[in-house]
Amino acid sequence: MRSIEDILAAFTDDTLLPPIGSKGILILSGGMDSVTLLHFLVKERKCTMSAISFDYGQKHAKEISFAKKHCEALGVKHHVIALPFIGSLFESALLETGAAIPDGHYQEENMKQTVVPNRNMIMSAIAVGYGQSTGASFLALGVHAGDHAIYPDCRAEFVDALRHAIELSDWNPFTVFAPFQRMTKVEILEIGLQLSPPVDYGETWTCYKGGEKACGTCGSCQERLEAFAKIGIRDPQGYDK
Amino acid sequence: MRSIEDILAAFTDDTLLPPIGSKGILILSGGMDSVTLLHFLVKERKCTMSAISFDYGQKHAKEISFAKKHCEALGVKHHVIALPFIGSLFESALLETGAAIPDGHYQEENMKQTVVPNRNMIMSAIAVGYGQSTGASFLALGVHAGDHAIYPDCRAEFVDALRHAIELSDWNPFTVFAPFQRMTKVEILEIGLQLSPPVDYGETWTCYKGGEKACGTCGSCQERLEAFAKIGIRDPQGYDK
Repeated sequence: MRSIEDILAAFTDDTLLPPIGSKGILILSGGMDSVTLLHFLVKERKCTMSAISFDYGQKHAKEISFAKKHCEALGVKHHVIALPFIGSLFESALLETGAAIPDGHYQEENMKQTVVPNRNMIMSAIAVGYGQSTGASFLALGVHAGDHAIYPDCRAEFVDALRHAIELSDWNPFTVFAPFQRMTKVEILEIGLQLSPPVDYGETWTCYKGGEKACGTCGSCQERLEAFAKIGIRDPQGYDK
Repeated sequence: MRSIEDILAAFTDDTLLPPIGSKGILILSGGMDSVTLLHFLVKERKCTMSAISFDYGQKHAKEISFAKKHCEALGVKHHVIALPFIGSLFESALLETGAAIPDGHYQEENMKQTVVPNRNMIMSAIAVGYGQSTGASFLALGVHAGDHAIYPDCRAEFVDALRHAIELSDWNPFTVFAPFQRMTKVEILEIGLQLSPPVDYGETWTCYKGGEKACGTCGSCQERLEAFAKIGIRDPQGYDK
């Protein structure tokens, strides 16, 4: 594994890393990316973080219980905000009201069904409003380079445009940092495993299905398994197959 | 009064007016600006509109009942979305949990208390997600030129930045029109009164307080009264004083 310093050296610019010791708000899904980002900001950047998880009618809320555990362990204030209107008014296969989750790789056309319209802007806007009312100065987003291929609102152009709008949304300075924006899942994992103490990935949830164990077959599980395989470490999470 | 055509001629560019007959979503507060915009888009631009009103823990929900009436009269689909987390987690004098509403003109420093952090981005993001999931192609915003002085998220720069982010939020084309963005309250009123049939402003709610009648003294009431006075028409709404 490369060191955290080496990974960061290749990717850092001033839109990626919040100042040491600054106060921020993070959208915490309970998946690998946002959990790693929270640990990274608290342990490496010494930031004072709050976290918000959203219950928008996903097929399961397992990941939210993992989000809660990490916040408790890190002493981070955590709120769960319900967005029931997304389930009742919006259409997407990610939602309880939607179609079955498709198997297969993210790149495939059928994964476009899993897009929840404008999800990232909705969650970001709420997190920013909360952050602004509590004196934070930035929103941290866990988007990464592997996301953009199917989700329009994970693209770097979108994040840049969102940052610009957020910077104009208040009289006080407030911005967006997406430290992993140009990193792969492998690089995120390398960072998380080298934090002190390392992130326990057995306590994260990536699978799109809500089984007792992760399915190992959906696009999200496949991407996770490939990342662990690439750095030659066994995923501490159990799988159905 | 100037004609609608004359007013529009002075302000129109392609970020202001949706194409005739297009499908849009509008954030409808039940106040003068958004109610006028809904009537204008349906009657003058022949748009197929849906409307969303937000209950974010305002001190009163009177304006929402007016919003509902206008949608019923126009045959427009209307949803009310509750955002209870704003009242429980955010701080603002506009909210039930906040301080008393200050009297006096909008320009005054004390009206800054009435800002709900990032309110316009939150409401816009949700409305856009709903619009995208129902095949609409634009969000209509009722922001106007008088807004910007105290609300950072009513400024033209903010609306332009928000539009850019929204245009990148989906693979399908989706944009933002703010037809009144460069107009004064007087011009909005002139448009509404000349629509066929004209907007019934007795069925709108502008006052920031939740009394039986409008107070006539808060910044919002004063601005409304001045607009009616300028065009020499009596406000059909009764006032406390």
